[in-house]
Amino acid sequence: MKKVAVVLSGSGVFDGAEINEAVLTLLHITKQGASYQCFAPDIEQMHVVDHLRGEAGGESRNVLVESARIARGEVKPLSELNAADFDALILPGGFGVAKNFCDFAVNGADMQVNDQVLAVGKAFVEAGKPAGYMCIAPVLLPHIYGAGVRATIGNDSDVAAAIEKMGGQHVECPVDDIVVDDDHRLVTTPAYMLAENLVDAEKGISKLVEKVLYMAA
Amino acid sequence: MKKVAVVLSGSGVFDGAEINEAVLTLLHITKQGASYQCFAPDIEQMHVVDHLRGEAGGESRNVLVESARIARGEVKPLSELNAADFDALILPGGFGVAKNFCDFAVNGADMQVNDQVLAVGKAFVEAGKPAGYMCIAPVLLPHIYGAGVRATIGNDSDVAAAIEKMGGQHVECPVDDIVVDDDHRLVTTPAYMLAENLVDAEKGISKLVEKVLYMAA
Repeated sequence: MKKVAVVLSGSGVFDGAEINEAVLTLLHITKQGASYQCFAPDIEQMHVVDHLRGEAGGESRNVLVESARIARGEVKPLSELNAADFDALILPGGFGVAKNFCDFAVNGADMQVNDQVLAVGKAFVEAGKPAGYMCIAPVLLPHIYGAGVRATIGNDSDVAAAIEKMGGQHVECPVDDIVVDDDHRLVTTPAYMLAENLVDAEKGISKLVEKVLYMAA
Repeated sequence: MKKVAVVLSGSGVFDGAEINEAVLTLLHITKQGASYQCFAPDIEQMHVVDHLRGEAGGESRNVLVESARIARGEVKPLSELNAADFDALILPGGFGVAKNFCDFAVNGADMQVNDQVLAVGKAFVEAGKPAGYMCIAPVLLPHIYGAGVRATIGNDSDVAAAIEKMGGQHVECPVDDIVVDDDHRLVTTPAYMLAENLVDAEKGISKLVEKVLYMAA
């Protein structure tokens, strides 16, 4: 049975992992007959957003602890992720990626990536193991894969320009499809960068999961 | 297009709505060509559970605000739910139902139901509109439908005995199936009372959504 490491950035689209994307990822890994283990960094969130009002308050929450809500408690610290134990890596999106895994939400193309997230991403590159990044998560890819990496975040021109500025090649893609960079064994899909509902999101995410697992064969 | 009111009890299995159940419910409502609006009561959670360690701490969170994480912000106060505007009602489970919608988690069969939740459930009964309750949510049904209501929470003997003590008829049911009470236009499924993974949960939940929407025809 193939094993996938899924890295979560909290629980909730505006300050953590996009919950629908995370659940659809885990659903389709299971449907494909593979297994997964969720991981998250043991760090404080950049901030906590009231998802009803859209406002950030003074509260603080931990990325690992909140990610456990999606994983029903079954989440491990990202520091324990050893690429040798898994066949593939998948990162769902959500603002948590742009706020907790890096500072893209604040600094755009001048962003820095969290050390643990960077090390884990690079470990899968060095092991030659496939990975899938969805939604906003592809902003991490120029830092992880280096210049020339091909990926999509859909068609948002500002985010696409930032990826290009960091050295990546952005490819426009509709919500129901994936972009495959065969040289880097890398799959991306727009998910909620474009999805208007769960059925939209599921089309691209199911393709991403299927392709990543196929590459892990 | 049929419209379903989905009532959430927070965000996270141990103190709120079971996230997987909620997302699968919304996914299958959309797949069936229906639309939904999420609602949640504007009340404090019974407590906040650290989902990594399984411990309840001193923090407080609001059920409506946390439910907005699952609904990507698109959730309304339960006080605004008018049964006349919808064709059906669905309640996902999670400990939030047993802790925030009633006090079953503390008082078992001697439980009381939150006034708003009780009023909304009864409004759909009085309107003759179908409803689906999954996981632990059927503990609410004797209070909402009265004695004789037929429902399942899977095969947990303690919870089943409590439902019977409150006047309900418990029917054992496997995770991939539903129990239909035609007299009450009511559908129940065990979901994470029995599910060992997302594929298990999806089988029963998709059947529940399909049946509820069929009854709403």
